[in-house]
Amino acid sequence: MAPRDTVYDHNDTQKRYDSSNNNDLIEGAGKIHLAEAQLWGKGIIADVKRTVGTHWFSEMINLNQKTVAVTLLMFITVIAPTLTFGAVYGKVTENRIGAIETILATAWVGCTYALVGGMPMCIIGSTGPVLAFSTVIYNMSTNLDVPYYTFNAWISVWLLGYCLIAGFFDITRYVRLATRFTDEIFALLIVSIFVMDAIGDPFSDVGILRFLAPGHPSHEDNEDDPDYDYLKTGFLSVILGLGTTSLIFFFRSFKFSSFFCNQGVRTSIHDFAVTASVVTWTLVKELLFESVDTEGLKVPDQFEPTFACCDSSCLTFFPDDCLGQAAAAGTRSWFVSFSDFNGKGWVPIAAAGPALLAFVLVYLDNGITWHLIYHKSHNLQHGEAYNYDLCLSGFFNFVNAMLGLPWLVATTVPCIIHLNSLAEKDKDGKFLSVQETRLTMLFSHMLVGLSILALDVLKLLPLPVLYGVFLFMGLSSLPNIQFWNRFLLFFMQPSQYPETVYTRYMSKARIHKYTLIQIFFFALVFIVQNFKAIAIVFPLMTLLCIPARLYFLPRFFEGWELMLLDGEDEQIREWEEAKQQSMLSSDELRVGTKHDMKVDDGDDDASSDEQV
Amino acid sequence: MAPRDTVYDHNDTQKRYDSSNNNDLIEGAGKIHLAEAQLWGKGIIADVKRTVGTHWFSEMINLNQKTVAVTLLMFITVIAPTLTFGAVYGKVTENRIGAIETILATAWVGCTYALVGGMPMCIIGSTGPVLAFSTVIYNMSTNLDVPYYTFNAWISVWLLGYCLIAGFFDITRYVRLATRFTDEIFALLIVSIFVMDAIGDPFSDVGILRFLAPGHPSHEDNEDDPDYDYLKTGFLSVILGLGTTSLIFFFRSFKFSSFFCNQGVRTSIHDFAVTASVVTWTLVKELLFESVDTEGLKVPDQFEPTFACCDSSCLTFFPDDCLGQAAAAGTRSWFVSFSDFNGKGWVPIAAAGPALLAFVLVYLDNGITWHLIYHKSHNLQHGEAYNYDLCLSGFFNFVNAMLGLPWLVATTVPCIIHLNSLAEKDKDGKFLSVQETRLTMLFSHMLVGLSILALDVLKLLPLPVLYGVFLFMGLSSLPNIQFWNRFLLFFMQPSQYPETVYTRYMSKARIHKYTLIQIFFFALVFIVQNFKAIAIVFPLMTLLCIPARLYFLPRFFEGWELMLLDGEDEQIREWEEAKQQSMLSSDELRVGTKHDMKVDDGDDDASSDEQV
Repeated sequence: MAPRDTVYDHNDTQKRYDSSNNNDLIEGAGKIHLAEAQLWGKGIIADVKRTVGTHWFSEMINLNQKTVAVTLLMFITVIAPTLTFGAVYGKVTENRIGAIETILATAWVGCTYALVGGMPMCIIGSTGPVLAFSTVIYNMSTNLDVPYYTFNAWISVWLLGYCLIAGFFDITRYVRLATRFTDEIFALLIVSIFVMDAIGDPFSDVGILRFLAPGHPSHEDNEDDPDYDYLKTGFLSVILGLGTTSLIFFFRSFKFSSFFCNQGVRTSIHDFAVTASVVTWTLVKELLFESVDTEGLKVPDQFEPTFACCDSSCLTFFPDDCLGQAAAAGTRSWFVSFSDFNGKGWVPIAAAGPALLAFVLVYLDNGITWHLIYHKSHNLQHGEAYNYDLCLSGFFNFVNAMLGLPWLVATTVPCIIHLNSLAEKDKDGKFLSVQETRLTMLFSHMLVGLSILALDVLKLLPLPVLYGVFLFMGLSSLPNIQFWNRFLLFFMQPSQYPETVYTRYMSKARIHKYTLIQIFFFALVFIVQNFKAIAIVFPLMTLLCIPARLYFLPRFFEGWELMLLDGEDEQIREWEEAKQQSMLSSDELRVGTKHDMKVDDGDDDASSDEQV
Repeated sequence: MAPRDTVYDHNDTQKRYDSSNNNDLIEGAGKIHLAEAQLWGKGIIADVKRTVGTHWFSEMINLNQKTVAVTLLMFITVIAPTLTFGAVYGKVTENRIGAIETILATAWVGCTYALVGGMPMCIIGSTGPVLAFSTVIYNMSTNLDVPYYTFNAWISVWLLGYCLIAGFFDITRYVRLATRFTDEIFALLIVSIFVMDAIGDPFSDVGILRFLAPGHPSHEDNEDDPDYDYLKTGFLSVILGLGTTSLIFFFRSFKFSSFFCNQGVRTSIHDFAVTASVVTWTLVKELLFESVDTEGLKVPDQFEPTFACCDSSCLTFFPDDCLGQAAAAGTRSWFVSFSDFNGKGWVPIAAAGPALLAFVLVYLDNGITWHLIYHKSHNLQHGEAYNYDLCLSGFFNFVNAMLGLPWLVATTVPCIIHLNSLAEKDKDGKFLSVQETRLTMLFSHMLVGLSILALDVLKLLPLPVLYGVFLFMGLSSLPNIQFWNRFLLFFMQPSQYPETVYTRYMSKARIHKYTLIQIFFFALVFIVQNFKAIAIVFPLMTLLCIPARLYFLPRFFEGWELMLLDGEDEQIREWEEAKQQSMLSSDELRVGTKHDMKVDDGDDDASSDEQV
């Protein structure tokens, strides 16, 4: 957290914990302020002027070596999760959405956003919470017996409307109320989605370990094959999946080693770790274990929607649902129907409800990422465009739903990689400047689009390998989540807690209390998200964390404590300096007492008498 | 290596590499001295007087809490490798020696040695090189068509003779000529044996990955079982093996973490890591994958030799070699025959040759470990007994061979654990004192003997899990081998080499040259050991490293270089202090030159002119 330059002695432990004036050290510790609202579309206009209007040309011509390098890096960074999400979408929507759809959506939205978006540092793609919400929508459509595509399309119509209203009335500024407390509950939710989808979700049949169950659908598809053995496939899947994750971490570890001839090579190995591991394990599967069937990425033979139909009604998926049938009756059409209600005419109206929840999710998922990327400390010159981009987000997702593609929002991890690779930093990692450009996103997403030409290659990718990538995505973000680090404190020896600003100044009991409250809210979100009947309201549960932080937490914690755990780094630094100052001056005061006023303040050590 | 307290500036790089007087800094750098010989048995008598004669009583009565704790620790430390070696012996000798034999040998030798041995800090057990040599003996006996037990027994007769002669003429003192150069070639050979036997030996069918081959004997045994699938078993074996290794490393990593309530708990988890991991993965196999057959530890139903016979001639192994036969014809008798030559009466004489090589191996394997444990810096008070213990070693192995048990020698890793757990150290890890006792070895090996009562439990242990333990034993010692660390330098960026005394003072090219020479000698030993036709002479190849170090290396390297790479820590420290002193005084000399004599010595920086 804050820098730890000063060397402290043991005696100041008391003073550190003496919290009598901690709240007065700086003004407004732990309080959150909002800017004035820009109503009636003024926010959108200001956004456009501030971003596209002023900087578009300069952001479109800064082509240089860095642009090329970052383009390649971003292609690699984006393509792997896009395919993985495609595979998992295929599982949870029973192939309504597949890898073709995630690639196509990512490519067109990326290119378009690069050209007209307000904040071109932010990469748009699939995220865990949106995947989870789409799962809920799909399950709902099955329960209601309404075609998924139509249901989803109508939700997207409403979603677009909500986004436009939010942009028009500058509702996006409220996202700044989502502090670290909420952000990290959301971040841990994302980790839980990644890890559970990768390892094995107890609530569905997604994940590596699920292959070990005899009843897994991928095994049932192979029932007719006498050579097929579910356990053999299961064991190989486990090895491929965990092998992929381990190899990614191994490759990435070189970055901070001394191996290879220079830092450039080490950084490349780090950056290309995911791709290299996926390729390695795909080759292991293809070359060494060709005889064992493992589930692969579902990709059609040519560029067409993933959902091939068993018959002309196109309600069942070929070949899984009609084994033995020689050929598909065709595929679904690209444009989904807005009128295929299966006799339930109330769908367009009823969609308003789920759409509101979808809006909350898109609002939070986008907003938290924007907030993180456009943080003051990153020294970005081309301003923010929350209102404008939220409207764009609504529009993109509307078009996606119309074409049967998945919704996309700003994705934290690729955004951070994008930002860091375009930044110049000083030795301490402080951002000096960032080459703000639209070209890297444009070119890299063009490459993503071109990967559709390599369908035969994509087919070779074993699903367990992609699960391995998912597992990596979950685990890799854990060490940066303060909430997780505080959770680990429960299992540590108190005297050996890592040095952070909160372990330094707050009592252990208070830290644990804060963590316990956070666990409670996380559990609320997590349980709701995984409990099918009520899963749809999990975005609301996440939203609930904001008022909890604003009105509930201050009852239990003092302002300075909330600031240390939940405040901005800058404010924390300022407070810590003031605290140091106050500790020093209390020393001086005491020494002064002894020498000049000869008054025993009752707090001195035994030797003070001799000094008098 | 040496302490790095001083902070150096960049400018002294030149001075560090200025090697003009490096050889003169201390006397006799890089030279090795031998004590005077104690011929005609005087050495043995002195050993007995110095050790058993003086300290036996005090070493038998120091029973305290530490003795009990270390007893338990040593039991755990010894039992796991004993079982693992038993499993691998079973593989390479086709069940002539198995887990029962390794347990029995370890138990009786350990207890006896604890009572009468000269250096009770040294644990005796199975080692990789002895395993490799026994493999050679077994293959030789098969090729010569001589019964293994008889052949081995006659070799042991000669081995006993050589050991007695060596003790009588104080030949053990020459083992001090085996410096780090030879020790680490030997250590890396041990690592290679562990890793290859665990992962998969290309030259035999031992190892985890070999289960993936359809022709592996364990699969052939199950050919009649319609549910059996070699790949299924293979995959589960890989998961069990690598899982065991990973979990051991995971448990051990807690020692240096902040988790759990205090250091005592963390150290216990570290110390019991092997057992905990073996138990965990055995349970995973038994509870979750009961239906999958994996190869288990071969243990008879009751306490009898492992080798059960198909018929009364007892040349083939039941049940593997006579599938379908209902019951064994019996087991081999405990006492092996000295006269079953299969018509080849020259065996007793011819055994003298292999026995000489066996002697070299026992001599080196024992000697290098004794040397390491009884190092000056460990501050042991109860002296050494090389001659006496070598005679004992010969006697023990003679009895073992007579009973068809494996040979045992001093085993490095358990010895180090034993020493460390009995030691009191200061903060920097320096040895203050060691509680020298015979009780820990006595009691722990009694427990090892008692484990024979739990045959049914031992049977549950899957062989792949034991391979996982083997892999751990190999990998865990790698980071401490300087040879290995120097080998890694080849792949590192030179400016980022880790700080060691040799990277600090020697040029990079010279370090690499030394490593290349060492690789050459290692390759020689390694190739010979793995090339069946000549494998028998691999102890000689190891022995060859000693003259190479004494007469060959000094032609390429200066004394001070050999000392930095191959010398005693104390001598290195002394040399480095002298070097620092000489660098300082050359500074003073130069400053003196500038101020007093006004002579430009041509080596100053530009600013020197102004000072004059």
